[in-house]
Amino acid sequence: MHAQIKELYPLCRSITGNGVRQSLQILKRSIPLEIREVPTGTQVFDWTVPKEWNITDAYIKNAHGERIVDFKRLNLHVMSYSIPVKRKMSLAELRPHLFSLPEQPDWVPHKTSYYKENWGFSLSHRQLQSMEEGEYDVCIDSSLTDGSLTYGEYVLPGTSQDEVLISTHTCHPSLCNDNLSGIAVSTALAQALADRSRRYTYRFLFIPTQIGSMTWLALHEHVVPKIKHGLVLVGLGDSGSMTYKRSRQGQAEIDRAAIQVLKDSGHPYKVVDFFPFGYDERQYCSPGFDLPVGSLMRTPHGQFPEYHTSADNLEFVKPAALEDSFHKSLSLIEVLERNKTYVNQNPKCEPRLGPRGLYRTTGGHTGSGQIKEMPILWALNLSDGVHSLLDIAERSNLPFAEIAQAAESLEACGLLREK
Amino acid sequence: MHAQIKELYPLCRSITGNGVRQSLQILKRSIPLEIREVPTGTQVFDWTVPKEWNITDAYIKNAHGERIVDFKRLNLHVMSYSIPVKRKMSLAELRPHLFSLPEQPDWVPHKTSYYKENWGFSLSHRQLQSMEEGEYDVCIDSSLTDGSLTYGEYVLPGTSQDEVLISTHTCHPSLCNDNLSGIAVSTALAQALADRSRRYTYRFLFIPTQIGSMTWLALHEHVVPKIKHGLVLVGLGDSGSMTYKRSRQGQAEIDRAAIQVLKDSGHPYKVVDFFPFGYDERQYCSPGFDLPVGSLMRTPHGQFPEYHTSADNLEFVKPAALEDSFHKSLSLIEVLERNKTYVNQNPKCEPRLGPRGLYRTTGGHTGSGQIKEMPILWALNLSDGVHSLLDIAERSNLPFAEIAQAAESLEACGLLREK
Amino acid sequence: MHAQIKELYPLCRSITGNGVRQSLQILKRSIPLEIREVPTGTQVFDWTVPKEWNITDAYIKNAHGERIVDFKRLNLHVMSYSIPVKRKMSLAELRPHLFSLPEQPDWVPHKTSYYKENWGFSLSHRQLQSMEEGEYDVCIDSSLTDGSLTYGEYVLPGTSQDEVLISTHTCHPSLCNDNLSGIAVSTALAQALADRSRRYTYRFLFIPTQIGSMTWLALHEHVVPKIKHGLVLVGLGDSGSMTYKRSRQGQAEIDRAAIQVLKDSGHPYKVVDFFPFGYDERQYCSPGFDLPVGSLMRTPHGQFPEYHTSADNLEFVKPAALEDSFHKSLSLIEVLERNKTYVNQNPKCEPRLGPRGLYRTTGGHTGSGQIKEMPILWALNLSDGVHSLLDIAERSNLPFAEIAQAAESLEACGLLREK
Repeated sequence: MHAQIKELYPLCRSITGNGVRQSLQILKRSIPLEIREVPTGTQVFDWTVPKEWNITDAYIKNAHGERIVDFKRLNLHVMSYSIPVKRKMSLAELRPHLFSLPEQPDWVPHKTSYYKENWGFSLSHRQLQSMEEGEYDVCIDSSLTDGSLTYGEYVLPGTSQDEVLISTHTCHPSLCNDNLSGIAVSTALAQALADRSRRYTYRFLFIPTQIGSMTWLALHEHVVPKIKHGLVLVGLGDSGSMTYKRSRQGQAEIDRAAIQVLKDSGHPYKVVDFFPFGYDERQYCSPGFDLPVGSLMRTPHGQFPEYHTSADNLEFVKPAALEDSFHKSLSLIEVLERNKTYVNQNPKCEPRLGPRGLYRTTGGHTGSGQIKEMPILWALNLSDGVHSLLDIAERSNLPFAEIAQAAESLEACGLLREK
Repeated sequence: MHAQIKELYPLCRSITGNGVRQSLQILKRSIPLEIREVPTGTQVFDWTVPKEWNITDAYIKNAHGERIVDFKRLNLHVMSYSIPVKRKMSLAELRPHLFSLPEQPDWVPHKTSYYKENWGFSLSHRQLQSMEEGEYDVCIDSSLTDGSLTYGEYVLPGTSQDEVLISTHTCHPSLCNDNLSGIAVSTALAQALADRSRRYTYRFLFIPTQIGSMTWLALHEHVVPKIKHGLVLVGLGDSGSMTYKRSRQGQAEIDRAAIQVLKDSGHPYKVVDFFPFGYDERQYCSPGFDLPVGSLMRTPHGQFPEYHTSADNLEFVKPAALEDSFHKSLSLIEVLERNKTYVNQNPKCEPRLGPRGLYRTTGGHTGSGQIKEMPILWALNLSDGVHSLLDIAERSNLPFAEIAQAAESLEACGLLREK
Repeated sequence: MHAQIKELYPLCRSITGNGVRQSLQILKRSIPLEIREVPTGTQVFDWTVPKEWNITDAYIKNAHGERIVDFKRLNLHVMSYSIPVKRKMSLAELRPHLFSLPEQPDWVPHKTSYYKENWGFSLSHRQLQSMEEGEYDVCIDSSLTDGSLTYGEYVLPGTSQDEVLISTHTCHPSLCNDNLSGIAVSTALAQALADRSRRYTYRFLFIPTQIGSMTWLALHEHVVPKIKHGLVLVGLGDSGSMTYKRSRQGQAEIDRAAIQVLKDSGHPYKVVDFFPFGYDERQYCSPGFDLPVGSLMRTPHGQFPEYHTSADNLEFVKPAALEDSFHKSLSLIEVLERNKTYVNQNPKCEPRLGPRGLYRTTGGHTGSGQIKEMPILWALNLSDGVHSLLDIAERSNLPFAEIAQAAESLEACGLLREK
């Protein structure tokens, strides 16, 4: 995953444009995703698909003709969606278009102006302070023209038409945690699921944030009712512990499954309630859809200083963190896949487990501690056609995997039947 | 408010009689309240309106003819509803009729005997101990005759017939916090509301506690269904922090609104669950009515040593505390007035806020902390026709005023419509 | 109770056999219980009643002919349900059949093998280590034959057919806390209830654990719907504090009543959620029955080191603990008997309590602290035909006995009527 991030890192992505197209082409080598184009001007609810933005070069040259700020060295130097500029101007004239971070004087901030025509450069505060009065040659060789919004979609059919939506944003330029990490984990997840039998149909979206999910929702309202669970993957490469942000529904199966996985991991984790800010969960959880879509991340956006700066780079993202995020995402999907509701076929008193090889034979003094048959006893006791395996894991305070394995053993010997 | 308290302080109020009438006449100079008279003997549920009590003078004279206890100096010296007495008696005979507070030897306690004929004097424990054996001339020049129970009522009509009941007791003699403070805050509130447009109809009651609310309820059973929220105002002048006592329902809108106001104030506060003791909430919350009536106070009655003693005087009540109580009461009413339920008119995905002047235009790095558009985003996200603004304030953990202002802005530009 | 435990202690009980019969005959001297016999081979749901096990003698003799392990000295020495053995064998051959507790080298563990034919001896680890190589004369003079499972049943009819089930297991050999303590408390409870008027019908079961409750349930499915509350009594003699294990339902009346009693006692206590392990609550709370049956104990089984060892002896069980367990069990039954729902006959405002002798007559300064009429005020306020007395005790945070007494006084003077 880290290698893929390295390959994607230099490309200048935005909410539209060739940077996104190239990025999706790279992903296509790993998974056979469909690349979709939605024309500029398409109405998507209250919005319209914006003009397509492309950029080939940009710089600020000083009086000596030296490129003191150079897009080709770091694409963050240009405010995303900057309109073309090519002229000389004084520092005073240029200054309102320069952005820096006084509190982090060596870092270059990421700035955007998608919906209001403007232009700008980001640079380190140290560099800004060293700029002398005088004339500068300012060039942004960009274009803002009718074109399209590009996104990727990959559907893995399951035995059921019920869908799990995995959504990841692709609109950030050279920023690694936000969100090449999400792209890499999502791609790895799609690869892993392609090789398995699936109960659910999985739909992976690689979209520009907000306008992308709005566009997809507007064009796929007929698909929406099939979405039973959803996850926005973002910020999965930093070395912080995991965070799960609940869906607007708050107690949806995806919420409970995610929390169960984080709890079962034994690692520290945080759960935050839904709030209508962040990434595409804002749209999936708007009141007209109210989909059960949560968000899995490590340190929440805005809570690490590197967020939306040049310090969110290849070093900031750790292979071990990506690996861990991938495994937890996969475990979460596994909980969804295995979370069924069973009916105990011998509901009156406990059945004989010994003859079925499910119970020890010598009783009496057992020492202290949990006996190893507890998952089986819980699965039998609560499989009344009402409690799902996730309910049972929550109530028993046992790992979901142990409950699921117990239930599957009991199903194998006929003591449980799926509802 | 403190000036009004000063004027009311010397009058000898009780559950009936001229002291109450004079007090209500003083209030009438501030608000045009109706003064009602309910004749002695009127049946009010399990009770009857008692005889009217009036008193002109009372004293205990010692052997030298000196008034050692004098009603005219402090009306608390006489047990409220004392029957007439005029005779000489020994200290031994007098003693069962003398009340003092050994633990507070300089304070005079307030005593009553409304429903059993009796008489008595209160005096400081120090004075009691200094009384010598010998004959005393004891006089209570009171009358207990058929008359009426007097209360004040002031109705401010609103656009809706739904009512907010503000109830305050008026039956205590020279005691300031209990309840000249409640009377003063209630009067100021009525004055403030008279000048505003009102969604609700407001009904202010100035009544003797318990028998007054019972009488009003008995005579106005047809009005009861209109009462949507209610508040008993009492003990609002001491320097303690605010306390809200929940209604019997416990989670009524008045309860949640009061707690929201106290929380939003940033000041310390306490919330206590309903219990069937205290003031007129006992009657409003009796099971046959179960009205959503809570009680707003500062230090709860019985929890400050000055309670029901001569130390609950003009110094005990602080102008700043009265002011603060007034503002919090008014804020509470404002929550009730503004707490509406809206329907997002653009429920699928977020609407464009920028063109409506409701959103910043430059994105990207935003630093840390809450963004200022959060109240707007919350109001949009939860305005689904189910969540009220109070629900939204509670869930978002934002001040009610911010949510209400956001909703009103969104309504102004057509994005929300009242349900 | 301790004397009864002393008499029962030496008998070799198991899930069937003469030890149980003799034990029940001893109980019959205290309460007229019916002794039931269910033949070997009777089908009880997924199980069959096992063969009857009896034993007259067992020993291990060393090369000198000395009984180094002797059933007659301590019946725990023989694994319960051991098949007959009579032959000489080497220590190597004998060893797989010897059980000891290395961590408690002086104690003899209790072992069973009910459902798989096997034999074994338990002995102290110290003794096991002292056994020398050589030949041993091993004898278990037992029989495993068609016979019956024996249990005791005692029904005390009440005015209602609704039943309270009190279930206690009788299948352990010389172990005192588990469960001669439960047997003794159950018997004392039955004696105490026999002398009272009873609203509920009480059914006491003295049964071998698991197979006994399964057998009873299988043969009495028609009785099951009458069971409104149930309690498994076990481990009530140790000096630990009380523990209540909730029923599977979790918030059944028995659960709330038990917790109220423990809270009102003022003693420390623990409440544990239901889990499908332990004693006969496993069967009563299997999903096909889901009866509101909790379990009252002191230290939970397995949480005291003496559990299922020879150290669970006559010294381990304390008369004061038994007495306390008995009183709390009886208090719990009293809550069930008295927990009724009333309707306030004067629901609008408070009724006059003074003339009915239920209220003090002098008002005004009352000092601090709860007034003594609070239980009466709570009973009036919440007796709306919905709240039971247990609801009222929980909400008022007052002892159940005070609420019940208040309600009974109010019923006596016509202010409350049972729903």
